[in-house]
Order: sequence, then structure tokens, then C-alpha cells
Amino acid sequence: MAELRRLQQRLRELEEELARERGGRGAPRPRIEAMSAEVTDSNPYSRLMALKRMGIVQDYEKIRTFTVAVVGVGGVGIFFFYLIILLLFDYDKVELANMNRLFFQPHQAGLSKVQAAEDTLRNINPDVQFEVHNYNITTLDNFEHFMDRISNGALEEGKPVDLVLSCVDNFEARMAINTACNELGQIWMESGVSENAVSGHIQLIIPGESACFACAPPLVVAANIDEKTLKREGVCAASLPTTMGVVAGILVQNVLKYLLNFGTVSYYLGYNAMQDFFPTMAMKPNPQCSDQNCRKQQEIYKKKVAAQPKQEVTEQEEEIVHEDNDWGIELVSEISEDELKAASGPVPDLPEGITVAYTIPNKEENPVAEETVAESEESLEELMAKMRNL
Amino acid sequence: MAELRRLQQRLRELEEELARERGGRGAPRPRIEAMSAEVTDSNPYSRLMALKRMGIVQDYEKIRTFTVAVVGVGGVGIFFFYLIILLLFDYDKVELANMNRLFFQPHQAGLSKVQAAEDTLRNINPDVQFEVHNYNITTLDNFEHFMDRISNGALEEGKPVDLVLSCVDNFEARMAINTACNELGQIWMESGVSENAVSGHIQLIIPGESACFACAPPLVVAANIDEKTLKREGVCAASLPTTMGVVAGILVQNVLKYLLNFGTVSYYLGYNAMQDFFPTMAMKPNPQCSDQNCRKQQEIYKKKVAAQPKQEVTEQEEEIVHEDNDWGIELVSEISEDELKAASGPVPDLPEGITVAYTIPNKEENPVAEETVAESEESLEELMAKMRNL
Repeated sequence: MAELRRLQQRLRELEEELARERGGRGAPRPRIEAMSAEVTDSNPYSRLMALKRMGIVQDYEKIRTFTVAVVGVGGVGIFFFYLIILLLFDYDKVELANMNRLFFQPHQAGLSKVQAAEDTLRNINPDVQFEVHNYNITTLDNFEHFMDRISNGALEEGKPVDLVLSCVDNFEARMAINTACNELGQIWMESGVSENAVSGHIQLIIPGESACFACAPPLVVAANIDEKTLKREGVCAASLPTTMGVVAGILVQNVLKYLLNFGTVSYYLGYNAMQDFFPTMAMKPNPQCSDQNCRKQQEIYKKKVAAQPKQEVTEQEEEIVHEDNDWGIELVSEISEDELKAASGPVPDLPEGITVAYTIPNKEENPVAEETVAESEESLEELMAKMRNL
Repeated sequence: MAELRRLQQRLRELEEELARERGGRGAPRPRIEAMSAEVTDSNPYSRLMALKRMGIVQDYEKIRTFTVAVVGVGGVGIFFFYLIILLLFDYDKVELANMNRLFFQPHQAGLSKVQAAEDTLRNINPDVQFEVHNYNITTLDNFEHFMDRISNGALEEGKPVDLVLSCVDNFEARMAINTACNELGQIWMESGVSENAVSGHIQLIIPGESACFACAPPLVVAANIDEKTLKREGVCAASLPTTMGVVAGILVQNVLKYLLNFGTVSYYLGYNAMQDFFPTMAMKPNPQCSDQNCRKQQEIYKKKVAAQPKQEVTEQEEEIVHEDNDWGIELVSEISEDELKAASGPVPDLPEGITVAYTIPNKEENPVAEETVAESEESLEELMAKMRNL
């Protein structure tokens, strides 16, 4: 009997513990077939559909037809993807050092980042469909598989994804994405945060139409910080969740504007956190680009433009070209092909506040990582002089 | 005996259920007494402390001495507060309609926002200390209690908090915070996102030194959207997590820059998501401000400046005044007191892209909410003409 009472007591304790553990948590909400604009507290889509009523976004429901591939599920990649079909690529594991953001939670330490991201996002929004790949895209086999999924991974299997997002933290992975997208003619967006965590940028790359990563050294925001402090070995990069939040926000905003066709899509938008300065610009591709697929895409784009009736060209360009804004600020620096040809090196005349991230690779198809520096100490003038001598 | 076996069986089931329920979740990590810069995967502070090594932030550990009060735990208020002592004020409950962001989770529906926020943040970072108040600060009793906590709620009880953040979505709550901070001489930051979700702003208010909310109609970013689409009744405001993410990011970045004394702290920073335009400006207080405590703070500030040796004044101002950035952009519009006195109304000459959110209240100490409109359809010129006639 004493044993029975002890068991009954333990049973009650366990039941209470379970109830506490479950807290207010019910089952996850059921999937929602059609997005509704109905204004009720239980409709997670009402605030988004209001954009349609206001005439800002013509067709928000269309978001459920798009497929986006995200390479790099870190501080930037993990943001806000709650309505789209998502392919996630990352080979990293969640560590406690990743806890300075709101996305990964301590109990996920040790899980792969793609799995942890899928778990968290699925819990928040069961309407998102996931395909996760826990590998490094830069190895030969994985790169081929990556190319295959980009080409065929859309909602309708066999069709390419709508957009690839680069949210990685190294040059090699960016160049792999660049190589794949040039070959496939795949539109992609790049994002990055500097080693010192106080600047970042996003960039839209339309193969053949805007400069790719091999056309010119990647552009970064000048941070006005003594670069020598960045160069010590064996120390990790700084990371500010605030800088990442801003960069992730402007990246996904640009994605929404691009996919849903509202506002002005930026080709390049920088963020200097120290001065609260946000330079924008656009850059045409380099006809002498070292990537042959980029040059091929440039030919295709030229033919496409030539084949279109004059009127259509204008209309199409209005959709995505970053026009001068209405505020009298002129920072967009469009380089014509003639200007580029006349230039003696591949570094165009950049607006103030934007500089190059790397020195140019030595005429090789695949530049090697050792030759790059995180943020060059050289001035733009010095770099241009160097390139003239190449 | 049958009963005993049944109980033993049930006990095993419950234990298994509890283990499943807890999943991979271990105990939360222990509190960390001293922030370390050690580069290990298990150190959640290594990425932040790197900022110190790089010379960007002199003393990041100091963050653990600051107390910040956040009013409004919504899309903006819930961001990134993982190292500070936090006072949270909100009277709302979590609804499924709040799920279009990454912070609240479906199982929290029905909980108070302050409780849900504390649970989530405590799980991510047990080093944050919380004090939560689930009430509306605008009622008489609550307002007094709010004032008391602002004045006494610092780490060292009896000292005022270091900063108040306004992350609310209505005029009445903003004016309540303004009234309290003017009376207490409490520095605060305001943030807001427009009804159409495609623009937002942050603002730093130092009583007596920069314009308060009663000095001039609150400033918002011009959105170039047909305002008529916003005016229908019974429909909810739009909400884009991307816009909220950017505004929250620039707000908390400004908080970090202000508290930890790095970079240039912005007095006003706007975000126009349609054009990717980020106007900045600064505005001095209005000597004819309708809030008597604002006028009193202006006198105190004047005396303080006059009493300081010339050199110290310059040094102090360099800490927080928004200087022209190095990029040749001039959007900061400092209004002198003479200019303000000479002006016939309280609306200063605003940089392009910034406009007023509300029409001016009719000479009352506490303007009533009915008299305000979310984003005026009137042009600045019309508004100024109106004010001249007041």
C-alpha cells in the first residue's frame, strides 16, 4: 500500500510536470490553404494582405508560388522566410556562439543549422515547404548537386528556383554561387556583413545584365575603421545582431520587392552603421569578365534587348532599375559599356562610401581564396593603379 | 496488484511523454558572471567582445550595467535585448496575427506579450534581468506607477533607468511617454512604422536639448503612397516583418551606439522601404513648446551648457550630435532658436522625404487622440499655413 501511495503521488507529480512543460502549447496551427485578408486575431496573414488592399502589392498570394534557395543559414539567412518554398544549404552546426541572435535557441546546440532552422520555421509557419541540404556547396560532388537543385527545385519539379540568396561568410562560397548562377542564368542576391560587424551590403545580380562577382572585385561599404585591428590571426570576427538584423531586413525586403513587383529594387544597397549611411549604386557587367559564362549571358541579354520592341524594353527596365529617388540624392553610378571598355582596369568609378572587398584575381577563371583580403587597406586609387599595371 | 501494475505502466508512459516533450531541450545554460572574449564555440559573447579588440567599442562589458525600459512589446520592441536589464511594459496579449515575425510562437497565443517576451528572452539569454508590467501606461494609476519605475528601476534600485524606448503603435501612448520623460528629464528613443508598413523611423529625444513630441508634430517618412487607401475604417494596418526588422535593427543599433559610445548616434533616421532611402536630421526644441516641463528642461540645459567650460561642451557634443557624414550628403537640418522664433508656426523647414505625422494640437497641454491623423494628406505648406492661423 505504501508503494501504491508512492506511485500515485509520483503519478500526480509527473502529470503536473507534463502540464507545466506543455504550458500553453497546443498543437501547431493547421496549414492554411488560401491566404485571407479577413481581420481576425487568429488570421496570421491579415497584416500582409492589407498591403494588397492599400494598392502597394498587387498580388501578395503569389508569394506561395515562389521557390527561394538560401545558401548559408546564419545571421542573415535565417530571417523572415515564412511564406515561400525554401531550399536551405549549410554545412555548419549550431553553437552557443550563434546565440547572440533570436533565431537559434540554446537547446538546438549541436543540431545542423539547416535542421534547426527548419524546426523553428515550421513551428512558426507550417505553410512553408522545406528542402534542406546539410553540406558544403564548394566541393565537387556537392556543387553538382547544388546546381541540379537550383535548376530543378521549384514547386513544379524540373523548373528552376525563382531566386538564390547568398548569406555565406566566405569568398569561396560566394564564387561557387556566382559560377553556378552564371552557368544557369539564375538571378541571385548576395549579402554580407563586414568582419568588424559595423557595415554590410546587399546586391542583386542578374547574369548578363548587372555585374557579377567576377566582373569586378566585390563591393563593400567603407567603414572608416582602422583595418589593422582586423588582421590578427586566431581571433573570430565580430558580430552584432543589430547589423545583421538591418542587413537581413533590407535583403528580404529587396526579395519581396523583386518577387512581388513593388517599389524600387536596389542593385546595391550598403549600410554603414557607424554613420547611418546607406549608399546605393548599380553596375553593368564587365565585357572582359574572367567568367566565360558571364560573357555568354551578356551576349544573350544583348540579343534579348535587341529583339524586344522599344516600348517593352522601357517597361521592363522600369521594373528593376534603381532610378534616382525623389529626394535629390544622386548616388547611383551607372557605368556605360563604353566607359567600362575605355577604363584600363575592371574597377569602375565608385560612389563615395563604397569600396572593393578584394584585390582582383590574376586572370584565372577561379581565383583562390588566399589572394583575397577581407577589406583592403589600399585606397581605390592605389588599387586602380595596380590594375592598370596587370 | 493489478492497480499497482496499471500505475507502474502509466508512470513509464508519463516519463516517456515528458522526455519526448522536453525533446533535445537540456537545462538552460548557466548564467555567465563575466563576459569573456575567449574564442570558443561555447562562448555566446565572443563575437561581441571582438568589437572591443577591434577598437570599435571601448567597453562592451559596460552593457551589463545599463537598464532599459521598453514600452510596447510588438514587432519593434522585442528585438535583440539580450545583454541589458530590461523593464517591459505592454497590456496586449499574443495573437496568431502577431505570428508574421520570428519572436512570438504559436503556442504562446493567449499569453500576455510581456510574459511571452520574458519567457523567450530568458531561454535565449539567462543573463538578462526582467521586470515586466502587463498594463496600459496611459491610465492615471498606471502612468504614476510607470513614472515611478522609470525613476527608480535601475540595477541600483532608486536610480533612474538609462533609456526608455517607445515601441508603441499609437499617439496617446507616445504622448504619455513624452510627458513622463519631460517631467523626469529622462532621455528616450521613439520608433514607428507607418500604417502601410513601407516606411518607418527612429528618433532620439533628450529633454531640453532636442525637440520633444510636443515641440512640433511628430516627423514621419514621406511614403509617396496614395493616402486614401489607408483611410478605410474597420480594417487593420498592414505589417511587414522586413520593415519592422529594419526599424528594430536601426533602433537597437542606435541604443548600443548611445549607451556604449561608438559611432554617430542619429537624432532622427527615417526608412523609406519603397525607394531604399534613409533621411537623417536633427531638430532643436521649440521654446514655445506646449509642454511646460519641456520648457523647464530647455532652461536647465541652457544653464548646464553655459556653466561648462568651452572645451568640455565641445567634447560632450561630439559624443551624440549627428555630424555631417563623410559622404557629402547634407540632410541634417539644425534649426537655430532665432529661426524658430522667427517662424510663425512650430513646423521647421524639413529635409525632403520627412513630413509631419499629425496636425498640431490646439494649444492644449495634453492633445487628444481624435485630433490626430495617422499620416496627413495635407502638404507641409498647407499645414504651415494652417498653423499660422492658429
